[in-house]
Amino acid sequence: MTSRIDGSKIARRIRASVADRVAEAARSGRVPGLATVLVGDDPASAVYVAAKRRAVREAGMRDFHRQLPERATQLEVATVIDDLAHNPDVSGILLQLPLPAHLTAAALIDRIPVAKDVDGLTTASAGRLARGERGLRPCTPSGVIELLDAEGIELRGACVAMVGWGELVGRPLTQLLLRRGATVSVAHEFTADLAAVTRPADIVVVATGVRGLVGPEHVKPGATVIDAGIHRTSSGLTGDVRAAELDGIAGRITPVPGGVGPMTIAMLVVNTLRAAEWGAERQAVPA
Amino acid sequence: MTSRIDGSKIARRIRASVADRVAEAARSGRVPGLATVLVGDDPASAVYVAAKRRAVREAGMRDFHRQLPERATQLEVATVIDDLAHNPDVSGILLQLPLPAHLTAAALIDRIPVAKDVDGLTTASAGRLARGERGLRPCTPSGVIELLDAEGIELRGACVAMVGWGELVGRPLTQLLLRRGATVSVAHEFTADLAAVTRPADIVVVATGVRGLVGPEHVKPGATVIDAGIHRTSSGLTGDVRAAELDGIAGRITPVPGGVGPMTIAMLVVNTLRAAEWGAERQAVPA
Ligand SMILES: NC(=O)c1ccc[n+]([C@@H]2O[C@H](COP(=O)([O-])OP(=O)(O)OC[C@H]3O[C@@H](n4cnc5c(N)ncnc54)[C@H](O)[C@@H]3O)[C@@H](O)[C@H]2O)c1
Ligand SMILES: NC(=O)c1ccc[n+]([C@@H]2O[C@H](COP(=O)([O-])OP(=O)(O)OC[C@H]3O[C@@H](n4cnc5c(N)ncnc54)[C@H](O)[C@@H]3O)[C@@H](O)[C@H]2O)c1
Repeated sequence: MTSRIDGSKIARRIRASVADRVAEAARSGRVPGLATVLVGDDPASAVYVAAKRRAVREAGMRDFHRQLPERATQLEVATVIDDLAHNPDVSGILLQLPLPAHLTAAALIDRIPVAKDVDGLTTASAGRLARGERGLRPCTPSGVIELLDAEGIELRGACVAMVGWGELVGRPLTQLLLRRGATVSVAHEFTADLAAVTRPADIVVVATGVRGLVGPEHVKPGATVIDAGIHRTSSGLTGDVRAAELDGIAGRITPVPGGVGPMTIAMLVVNTLRAAEWGAERQAVPA
Repeated sequence: MTSRIDGSKIARRIRASVADRVAEAARSGRVPGLATVLVGDDPASAVYVAAKRRAVREAGMRDFHRQLPERATQLEVATVIDDLAHNPDVSGILLQLPLPAHLTAAALIDRIPVAKDVDGLTTASAGRLARGERGLRPCTPSGVIELLDAEGIELRGACVAMVGWGELVGRPLTQLLLRRGATVSVAHEFTADLAAVTRPADIVVVATGVRGLVGPEHVKPGATVIDAGIHRTSSGLTGDVRAAELDGIAGRITPVPGGVGPMTIAMLVVNTLRAAEWGAERQAVPA
């Protein structure tokens, strides 16, 4: 009765449509390119970066990659970013997080020019999101919106519970949902009664980093449940939602893996194309 | 039984404490200054600007004012702002809104340097708020937080209903409340059932521009009600809340006038002092 939202399939469709547009742009000699910057050798980060680079190549875009040693200094990383910022072949720059603890992530992120900020995490991009101006939006939040749209779920007037108000997902997604006309309730670690927030909601989005936090006690029968959590366990990937327990209760649910995860990568590819188009406009219209 | 939150008194206390700090700074020759820019002759705007200038002078700060004609061009307004941006005696710049319809407000607001943005409305300030970085926060939202603090109302874990998600109040205030650990539900014009959002809340904040929108059907007995609305009627100022009907129901309520309004001006004075301090630091530490 509970239907699974096939994020892998929706992501494939989006990536294929980007590939078509990239092929078209390539005919006039403009090939978008993504630069991924990886500092150190965190194994999970290496896996993520490899998946992102593969997606970029599969979309027909150029793959620029910079690998820096774990002990790279703030200045060394900054210099690499500045170099990519000035390179006209690089449409987008992604600094893979988390960085080694001796580096100041916020200052490095903010060196990425707003028009190349495919992760949408700079202060400038956050400001543009807050004010509803043109800009690149963070990938996981915009992937969640795309999933809901692909499923034909009406956001205007819907009641959404956003569980988790983190930098990567909850904070920007709250704004995207409100811009689309949803009534949004935001819960987080200081929320006294989580179920009181989530039970009235038509859509429950969970992005807390707390494995299995949300279960049947939190969800209204028929509600849509979106799980952005990712946890590696000995039996595979799992999320912030106890999906099995919601079977027969939720109307629709995103599986982990195969739900939000693939959308994040699809939106990175979309953002790289958008960045290339934005960059081209900027070059065409001198400031 | 319902107690009235005396915004005028709290605002006076804040302004007096700013005046003390200004007097201290003046002894070492550093007098903060606010530049107000008023375009055209909207009577309400003239009243607001006069009140702001008076508050600035009463705090011992310098009052720079630029009056432009209704027909001023985008370039003329931009030139005035740029001039003030470069003037080291001007700590803060306030562009009074709304502007005449032929001007593009967003572009003019964004010419104000982030360290002089005492209204906190630039894209740069919005980004800093979103990322929790140092910056000047919009006056009405930070005034609401100050009111709640002055009343000793605990925000961490409190359930807050934010009614209205506008640029000046709801949007930035939602973020300030969440940063303080409140669980926040945001309602707006597309919210299907407003009472369902507001009735569970410990604190209801209203900033919609809809006169008398919120009444007893929306408020849990004992809840705190904050009314940011301002409407001029023939019988005086009134707000977005039907305050008389909430008597005996709300635990505390801000009156209109005398609630949020005076706090907005107090926070402008606070922001001008903060801008002066920030500016001084920037000069001390060359970039
Ligand atoms: N699918 C993807 O591609 C993808 C991408 C980015 C992040 N994520 C996942 O999304 C999650 C959130 O990421 P982030 O960076 O936004 O998070 P974060 O770590 O910055 O913030 C976590 C949020 O969850 C809240 N929280 C913690 N414990 C809670 C509890 N018991 N009840 C309610 N709320 C609680 C915190 O208050 C905070 O607001 C993580 O699990 C991360 O792995 C997935
Ligand atoms: N006290 C002060 O000094 C001060 C300062 C600034 C603004 N204000 C007042 O605050 C109010 C809001 O200002 P703003 O610029 O943020 O607003 P805005 O006009 O940008 O946005 C209004 C918000 O209210 C919502 N809304 C409209 N009708 C509604 C309804 N029927 N039910 C629920 N929500 C509804 C809209 O969806 C929108 O989110 C105005 O009344 C304004 O006068 C007061």
